[in-house]
Amino acid sequence: MAVILTHNSYGKSRVRLSKITRRPDRHEFKECTVDIRLEGDFEASYTRGDNSRIVATDTMKNAVYALARTQTLADLESFGLTLSDHFMANYAHVAKVVVELADLPWQRLVIGGREHPHAFIGGGSERRICLVTRTRQEKRIESGLDGLRLLKTTDSAFKGFLRDAYTTLPETDDRIFATMLSAQWRYGVNQANWGDCHRRIRQAMIDVFANHHSLSVQQTLHAMGTAALDSGPEIRQITLTMPNQHRLLVNLTPFGLDNPNEIFVATDEPFGLISAALTRE
Amino acid sequence: MAVILTHNSYGKSRVRLSKITRRPDRHEFKECTVDIRLEGDFEASYTRGDNSRIVATDTMKNAVYALARTQTLADLESFGLTLSDHFMANYAHVAKVVVELADLPWQRLVIGGREHPHAFIGGGSERRICLVTRTRQEKRIESGLDGLRLLKTTDSAFKGFLRDAYTTLPETDDRIFATMLSAQWRYGVNQANWGDCHRRIRQAMIDVFANHHSLSVQQTLHAMGTAALDSGPEIRQITLTMPNQHRLLVNLTPFGLDNPNEIFVATDEPFGLISAALTRE
Amino acid sequence: MAVILTHNSYGKSRVRLSKITRRPDRHEFKECTVDIRLEGDFEASYTRGDNSRIVATDTMKNAVYALARTQTLADLESFGLTLSDHFMANYAHVAKVVVELADLPWQRLVIGGREHPHAFIGGGSERRICLVTRTRQEKRIESGLDGLRLLKTTDSAFKGFLRDAYTTLPETDDRIFATMLSAQWRYGVNQANWGDCHRRIRQAMIDVFANHHSLSVQQTLHAMGTAALDSGPEIRQITLTMPNQHRLLVNLTPFGLDNPNEIFVATDEPFGLISAALTRE
Amino acid sequence: MAVILTHNSYGKSRVRLSKITRRPDRHEFKECTVDIRLEGDFEASYTRGDNSRIVATDTMKNAVYALARTQTLADLESFGLTLSDHFMANYAHVAKVVVELADLPWQRLVIGGREHPHAFIGGGSERRICLVTRTRQEKRIESGLDGLRLLKTTDSAFKGFLRDAYTTLPETDDRIFATMLSAQWRYGVNQANWGDCHRRIRQAMIDVFANHHSLSVQQTLHAMGTAALDSGPEIRQITLTMPNQHRLLVNLTPFGLDNPNEIFVATDEPFGLISAALTRE
Repeated sequence: MAVILTHNSYGKSRVRLSKITRRPDRHEFKECTVDIRLEGDFEASYTRGDNSRIVATDTMKNAVYALARTQTLADLESFGLTLSDHFMANYAHVAKVVVELADLPWQRLVIGGREHPHAFIGGGSERRICLVTRTRQEKRIESGLDGLRLLKTTDSAFKGFLRDAYTTLPETDDRIFATMLSAQWRYGVNQANWGDCHRRIRQAMIDVFANHHSLSVQQTLHAMGTAALDSGPEIRQITLTMPNQHRLLVNLTPFGLDNPNEIFVATDEPFGLISAALTRE
Repeated sequence: MAVILTHNSYGKSRVRLSKITRRPDRHEFKECTVDIRLEGDFEASYTRGDNSRIVATDTMKNAVYALARTQTLADLESFGLTLSDHFMANYAHVAKVVVELADLPWQRLVIGGREHPHAFIGGGSERRICLVTRTRQEKRIESGLDGLRLLKTTDSAFKGFLRDAYTTLPETDDRIFATMLSAQWRYGVNQANWGDCHRRIRQAMIDVFANHHSLSVQQTLHAMGTAALDSGPEIRQITLTMPNQHRLLVNLTPFGLDNPNEIFVATDEPFGLISAALTRE
Repeated sequence: MAVILTHNSYGKSRVRLSKITRRPDRHEFKECTVDIRLEGDFEASYTRGDNSRIVATDTMKNAVYALARTQTLADLESFGLTLSDHFMANYAHVAKVVVELADLPWQRLVIGGREHPHAFIGGGSERRICLVTRTRQEKRIESGLDGLRLLKTTDSAFKGFLRDAYTTLPETDDRIFATMLSAQWRYGVNQANWGDCHRRIRQAMIDVFANHHSLSVQQTLHAMGTAALDSGPEIRQITLTMPNQHRLLVNLTPFGLDNPNEIFVATDEPFGLISAALTRE
Repeated sequence: MAVILTHNSYGKSRVRLSKITRRPDRHEFKECTVDIRLEGDFEASYTRGDNSRIVATDTMKNAVYALARTQTLADLESFGLTLSDHFMANYAHVAKVVVELADLPWQRLVIGGREHPHAFIGGGSERRICLVTRTRQEKRIESGLDGLRLLKTTDSAFKGFLRDAYTTLPETDDRIFATMLSAQWRYGVNQANWGDCHRRIRQAMIDVFANHHSLSVQQTLHAMGTAALDSGPEIRQITLTMPNQHRLLVNLTPFGLDNPNEIFVATDEPFGLISAALTRE
């Protein structure tokens, strides 16, 4: 039987990087995780165990630390581009490199009303992420966020949906809307103030989430994505994924109590999962 | 600004299903998790909050339990097909349904040398998975496994790889090879003894892992995939993903001891990650 | 053989509670998890299967939701006391009740510079916790926090430690000090402004962490505990646990680079774990 | 204000150890995680930053690897005793050492009906654990297991329990009993065939779980503990903890279907939690 190797890729995952930048009056501190993945002329390693073209994944890890020493880590995007340049420039047989970065957020502590020069408090579940995909033809920069927990206690309805033999869900005018936003957008530019773009896009989505009169998770997600695209010319398309993290109204009737949308139980599973991709015309 | 909704999908995730089949002499017990995802004519819900075509994700969940009552759960594949049939047959505006299933393994207890009629012990991290993708044109059945932990203490080398300014990894003739196999294969048939196929493919990969004289993770992965394709005519292509879960030799020299490949430290991160797709010619 | 049942307890764990308090101008939103555990005259259930004195754990869960409807959730401590009162008052055969609560933090969103009336953003890994232990003789109120991630990039040394045949760690004048604080303190009072106490104690510990010139994790932990006890008369004793979440300096010499305490790798395991209990004289 | 340091302890957690024993015909392979904790005359480190008596946690880690090179890892218990001896013998100011070990199970692969000399498959969620506590007066050896998932589809009832205003749970004659057993027992001897003891005690508990006609989780837990104590003279007392991992009957009436105890939904939270300690008279 003849077998064809139709695709192969390999790399190093979860390279953890911490960097202190020591300024005269204060330290900057950044932590992120880097994943690197290469595609290219590596078939001989798969089919014959010929490793002569294999860049060891340990070597990839070393490159991350060495480049972090001389390059800025101010933005995930800049460092991702630096890393992708390195692999393309140094290995002619590499056809494609994918660099994924995710920051581990630390916020400067405020002590006695003043920003502390070198002490930090860990952030929440939200992580800023970045994905740089380089081929010999193209440079693609995507950014995003993951794990942003949002909840509103009202202004969320769900009614008028299809009813059939398997439908038991009652319609509602007023439910809790809780989600953990994951969004990933593609830039149409190769240079920008990445931090500013990220803040603007993130805030646009949060503002809509808070103020939207939601008729469905789908509709709010669409409005959030539209606002993100609207927030500036740099962003070209966006994909949003939002779980519907259900809060179920507790039936208190057996205990002689009413429950006017006050007491709920949070459930992790099952959950609704809504996703869409939007692009500029 | 005009925005186009280029993609949308929604569904219910992590529907947990347990089923007892009560036979005269013994109970069968199956547990699995089901994810359902629909694509189709749902744009109005995103853009205008018109939910009239929305099958509530709660309705999807109900369908899983109702169909599980009347249909067999003997194979993930059969039940996945049943579920995909249901959504295609009942909702004309659905263009595509994706059903993902993962079993939670339970093994019958053996007590006093005899199989117990109704008591079970939980299995390991390995899960059998299945993915059924239906469109109006096509029915695609993929199966696989996830979380299969494999380790060999020798017969694994890694040398002759590319060396440059960032390479510090020494060559080795003898290292521990530890991984957690994830494999997903596509069937070329719509009916089969799914359980038998799964056992055959799984065993073929394990046999190669154990007996292969490995020159690299890449080479062993390729050999395992080839053996899977070789194991029977039903399977058409396969994708394997194998992390290289490093065990690092501990330097005992400071304590006046040698370490002839005996004492290692397991590390979870960073890890190598090797992947390939193979197909029959 | 005679067997004695020397201890027994049972209860319900992970009861998830969400409560909206609907004020005219804004909603308050609280989420917490409740664990309840009873001890008492339950032996007959263990030894003879006589359940007549067993309060079903499902009943405990119901009580949490019913009491949450009529009682305030403003403080974990108040609600914990309410719950413990309920179980002691209604079940004469209960000798001891332990109620553990942990909040799931949500912060009000600020949109366009103004606090939003009903939209919230999820907090970080830190959780406020509370433990109420009631017997027929005593009422013990403990509060604390968990998962508070703190890091400082300097002002942390570790030297002068014992050296012997197994010591390879170099002394250091300047290392990263990263931890995830867990602290639990016991109040000496049964009534207080629990929220204020919690904020004061928490801030006292954070201030010391930031400003302490650390000679060891042990010393900083002790100073943080002392500051907590110092922060007010309500607190009687405190236990602190701090992992030493190592950041290891990366050796860049092979790449012709120095590393003046700039580039580190974070490791999750192994980790140091330091703990102490302090009490007022 | 005077503050007293009423308790202190410190140590190294999650030291991961892998050992290959190379026999002529086959390799043995063991992996475990070790936690070490010391108490003793360490106050000066806490109160004055005087580290002269501090055994660095890094030194503890080194000792684990060095001792693993020369000592057998056949049993967690033997290795735990070796480690505790080391710390007591070498550091006169240590008053107490606690060593916790947990194995990561690997089973030898059977290929073509024969045990493979050096290839292994990862085990399940169950881990064998061991806790050695040494003071200058006493040597305490505890063993146990964790994460053993057990389930029976019948022979489990729960009725006759207390009913009051908060009780809504119906009585049942036939429910699924699912748990994840955690058990820890104390030996009355300092030397034994630890592996045999462990297997005997474990099997005794599993046999009872399978065959017991359960009137409550409490009663089955008590019977399992009694059987464990009964299984041999070496064991003196045992503590068992069993979550009640509820499987809830799904109501299929809305879909015109009955549900004769066939279709269930597994829920992770909330869960009942039952615990007891038994001792020989």
